[in-house]
Amino acid sequence: MSKTLRLGVAGLGNVGVGLVKLVQGQETLRLTSKLEIVGVSARSRTRDRGIDISGYRWCDDAMSLALADDVDVYVELIGGSEGLAKQTVEAALEAGKHVVTANKALIAEHGCELAKIAEKKGVHLLFEAAVAGGVPVVRAVRDSLSGVRIDRISGILNGTCNYILTEMLDSGSPYEQVVKQAQRLGYAEADPWLDVSGMDAAHKIAILAAIAFGAAPDFSKVRVKGINDITDQDILLSSKLGYRIRLVAEAVQSGGKVRCFTAPTLFATDHPLALVTGPTNAVLIEGDPVGRLTLTGPGAGEGPTASAVMGDIARLNQGPATPPFGVNTSGLDDIFAEPTGEGMVSRWFIRANLADRSGTLAQLSDALAGARVSVDKLIQDSAGETGVAPIAIVTHACSRNTAESVIEKIATLPASVDAPQLIRIEA
Amino acid sequence: MSKTLRLGVAGLGNVGVGLVKLVQGQETLRLTSKLEIVGVSARSRTRDRGIDISGYRWCDDAMSLALADDVDVYVELIGGSEGLAKQTVEAALEAGKHVVTANKALIAEHGCELAKIAEKKGVHLLFEAAVAGGVPVVRAVRDSLSGVRIDRISGILNGTCNYILTEMLDSGSPYEQVVKQAQRLGYAEADPWLDVSGMDAAHKIAILAAIAFGAAPDFSKVRVKGINDITDQDILLSSKLGYRIRLVAEAVQSGGKVRCFTAPTLFATDHPLALVTGPTNAVLIEGDPVGRLTLTGPGAGEGPTASAVMGDIARLNQGPATPPFGVNTSGLDDIFAEPTGEGMVSRWFIRANLADRSGTLAQLSDALAGARVSVDKLIQDSAGETGVAPIAIVTHACSRNTAESVIEKIATLPASVDAPQLIRIEA
Repeated sequence: MSKTLRLGVAGLGNVGVGLVKLVQGQETLRLTSKLEIVGVSARSRTRDRGIDISGYRWCDDAMSLALADDVDVYVELIGGSEGLAKQTVEAALEAGKHVVTANKALIAEHGCELAKIAEKKGVHLLFEAAVAGGVPVVRAVRDSLSGVRIDRISGILNGTCNYILTEMLDSGSPYEQVVKQAQRLGYAEADPWLDVSGMDAAHKIAILAAIAFGAAPDFSKVRVKGINDITDQDILLSSKLGYRIRLVAEAVQSGGKVRCFTAPTLFATDHPLALVTGPTNAVLIEGDPVGRLTLTGPGAGEGPTASAVMGDIARLNQGPATPPFGVNTSGLDDIFAEPTGEGMVSRWFIRANLADRSGTLAQLSDALAGARVSVDKLIQDSAGETGVAPIAIVTHACSRNTAESVIEKIATLPASVDAPQLIRIEA
Repeated sequence: MSKTLRLGVAGLGNVGVGLVKLVQGQETLRLTSKLEIVGVSARSRTRDRGIDISGYRWCDDAMSLALADDVDVYVELIGGSEGLAKQTVEAALEAGKHVVTANKALIAEHGCELAKIAEKKGVHLLFEAAVAGGVPVVRAVRDSLSGVRIDRISGILNGTCNYILTEMLDSGSPYEQVVKQAQRLGYAEADPWLDVSGMDAAHKIAILAAIAFGAAPDFSKVRVKGINDITDQDILLSSKLGYRIRLVAEAVQSGGKVRCFTAPTLFATDHPLALVTGPTNAVLIEGDPVGRLTLTGPGAGEGPTASAVMGDIARLNQGPATPPFGVNTSGLDDIFAEPTGEGMVSRWFIRANLADRSGTLAQLSDALAGARVSVDKLIQDSAGETGVAPIAIVTHACSRNTAESVIEKIATLPASVDAPQLIRIEA
């Protein structure tokens, strides 16, 4: 048993509470260090969290905790890319303290500058809990797979979105209704924007891209698209065509550049990501010569995320600090590509709602033929009493630009009653 | 970039060749140390392996490589639990050299004594490649999950068996024929015994059990059962009942004891392990409060296994040695339970071949009723021209002892023409 690690825990939301519970029950764990919480900080001192924090020094001000002489490790669970989280993490690192954080926004947006401070001070900056909750993917990619060349890393990194997409198919309910249900079940925040906009998944994939490719994280270059314009029609029609819609976060390396994006994507029903349902996360790692690895598990929640924080804390006594992104910041390449999405060739799912009158299908066909986009599959559902027929198309492979030009044409058809949908088909 | 690590590589089979290739192309990888192979050893110096080893010192004798002054890391890829592998690993550790090995038999059978030497000498003994090939499960369990209490770890740890079971279902071919096909494709050895007997998976689960539960590995207490008595009838009938047969390797902790075994097991078709097909490995980790994690990927082969060796080598410059099994050998508990299998309560799959004459089904029913085993599902296939009817039963939950007593009774029925089959149903 090496020396005791003294923790200062800032933030006592779900994850903070989970961490306190684990530390309080540490004698049942396989740790090689004794952990001691010396101080905590949170917004409310009196809120009942179901844990006893009376033995810890209470700090109204997280900054005083980050700088306290008796704190070896500052555990930042405040959240947000700016403000108190950033200020205290910077200060703790500058003061020569190790930092463990679950803050994906902070690491994705300011990871490089923070890693520089950590390097300068020779301290650990660890963030396993920032990506995929309890799934230990950060260490797997950064350390275990440092001896292989990764080509692509992709996955389902937002459990809220995956729950919503799964539930829309299972229940047939529209988006707004399912979001409300997700909120009732605790899977979605009161303001679900960070999740459904793709922002949360985008933060996570930027971090994974950095460690997988030795790239300087540059969040401004992540193309972010969420699920907030996915309709129950999209879910139903894509299902009829043999697909599942997933919000995929992906980073691909080719030609010395890393393309990093989040986007709703169609997967064949037997694809590993199509099989991931509910609030689960899954990460696919494709590399040479390792092949394809899949890591799946609970991507959020008190227990899983606190487990990841504990895994990082356990790392601290295993040796001196290593570069937070795997290689020194001076060796991180500035290779995130501009987020144009240009040149991406794929098959595409197109959904349109067209007034049910003669000649409509011919207009649609003309729009496709005019852009030289050929149709692999097409289904038209009955218009019924609405007078509007939902049509879904699976195209053969074409570029994103071409597919987008088709969508623009369809949108201007006289028969078109709402904005048509365009979603990439992965496999 | 820290100091150069000088490697001595003993064994130039698939994995050794894969490792040499990775080291020779190291500038494309995310390593923080420069790697240099100073010497190699193998049975044949002249065999064409498709790699250039002329720049490395050739050692006819692996022992001289393990002890060479210019070797920092002895990479043992010879294999086998005794003989040269064991002698050289012991000698290298005693000489104060780090050891990286892919040798599951060695670690499962002698891991504790080797870890003691490594501890005494303050050197690393790493064996990620010994379990699940390219899937970085050893580090995940030992390090990333050291802060959670693992309840159960199970999985498909032998790709050969999984290929055979998958292919028997897909092709409808009998066991012997599929084994031959696996040998042609390179998925099975000329002597497939280590794989099909369950021995290989048993070595791997003993290692995982040790690191997951802080247990002293005791291979003598692993209950080992393979797939060599699984018939095409078992495959077909279990499939008709909604199950897939998998060779599962499992370690469960309860009541302070660890039960560790391999056994053919039935899984419902939508269970994560039923979805694992072909020569893939998958590991399920269930813990509190992390929930269930699944790690899937290629479990063998040159590239994946060499990747795992590289991941371990990359660890060497990240800090001083940590206990090979996560906690010091003095803290490893002697908690592997006797391999009785007693007391295990489960539902069971029973298959019998009974002569097609009146009263046969009544005799079978009597055998079940006599042991108070009730039937959940039963199917009887047509006897056709053979005059023998295959019957498969899914029982309600009962103990292994009870199920085995039923099997004994069925075996002695006058109508029984061969040994009946008994397989546990997991879910």
